[in-house]
Amino acid sequence: MDQKVIPDIVVGRLPLYLRALQRMLEEGRYITSSQELGERLGISAAQIRKDLSQFGEFGKQGTGYSIDYLAEQIRQILKVDRVWDVVVIGAGDIGSAVARYQGFANRGFRVVMIFDNDPEKIGTQVGQFTVQDIARADELIREAGIRVAMISVPSAEAQAVADQLVDAGAQAILNYAPLSLNVPPEVHVQYIDPVIHLQRMTYYL
Amino acid sequence: MDQKVIPDIVVGRLPLYLRALQRMLEEGRYITSSQELGERLGISAAQIRKDLSQFGEFGKQGTGYSIDYLAEQIRQILKVDRVWDVVVIGAGDIGSAVARYQGFANRGFRVVMIFDNDPEKIGTQVGQFTVQDIARADELIREAGIRVAMISVPSAEAQAVADQLVDAGAQAILNYAPLSLNVPPEVHVQYIDPVIHLQRMTYYL
Repeated sequence: MDQKVIPDIVVGRLPLYLRALQRMLEEGRYITSSQELGERLGISAAQIRKDLSQFGEFGKQGTGYSIDYLAEQIRQILKVDRVWDVVVIGAGDIGSAVARYQGFANRGFRVVMIFDNDPEKIGTQVGQFTVQDIARADELIREAGIRVAMISVPSAEAQAVADQLVDAGAQAILNYAPLSLNVPPEVHVQYIDPVIHLQRMTYYL
Repeated sequence: MDQKVIPDIVVGRLPLYLRALQRMLEEGRYITSSQELGERLGISAAQIRKDLSQFGEFGKQGTGYSIDYLAEQIRQILKVDRVWDVVVIGAGDIGSAVARYQGFANRGFRVVMIFDNDPEKIGTQVGQFTVQDIARADELIREAGIRVAMISVPSAEAQAVADQLVDAGAQAILNYAPLSLNVPPEVHVQYIDPVIHLQRMTYYL
């Protein structure tokens, strides 16, 4: 299975399936179907069956999927059957909101450190964290073996921060700064820019 | 041109092109090429040329694109050659960060109101806004003719808020709550959930 290259667009849908399944579990549900999942997600049942079949056999024709089992399988595929330590660079509005965000729990991630370069912010408290000096980021990230990072600094500083993170061993970067980053091919980057999402919708208005 | 249906994935790349072009303008640049754009964005030059050709002829073989002209054309296509008023529902960490976010300026959007249902938050100040009672959202959104909204409330409340927004005339919703919303087909929804992005990357680690 590891040999087979799964299209990135399929990989990208798995977290959505997992989120819907976890929600069903919270609702006290045990069994679901590709039809029901599809309705919740606005994705066709056929697409869901096809996506899941790339990874194995998770359900039986006519009996549907065990929600708990399917969620656990997807967690393993996405490697979130463990907890990844995450570092946040930038203790502004967005970085602080992210560091305090409760939504990481039980989904494979926990924020463990937050850094800033502003002397007025260093040493202050953000949720349960003390903002640390970015000058120490490299050392502390390396020491802790952290591989996942979020960037929430102004655009002008984001590339330099990304370079620093890559040097320190980061392999997955979620970038809130509104620009594209240049990183080595083995480093993964995802972007969150609300304007990009909004502009994609106004096209249709 | 309006008759032709452009694939949503192409529409989704236009905001990225626009962002890169605006950045080049800020750098004092005048002319670019699909090669250069592609390098900045990690998208092939051929893909960019193909995407843009769906909307018209924006550059000449050998001379490249006028950055200013191309940016203006994409702004028109995405309908962000105007400014859309945006309402934020939920004045928690994320909603407050979004309401104060400077990154909307010159990109087609401005936040004009923020609502919450928490009596402790109603009446308080978030950036330049006074948090208003969500009970008045319907009336105020309708009155102002606002069509673009952001939801930053807890998951359990997000669907009810979405229903309320749709009733009030919202046609484009950016949802920060980590769940899929059910809305009528004519309403557009985009999602921001950092965990979805992180899980998509850990697959590759």
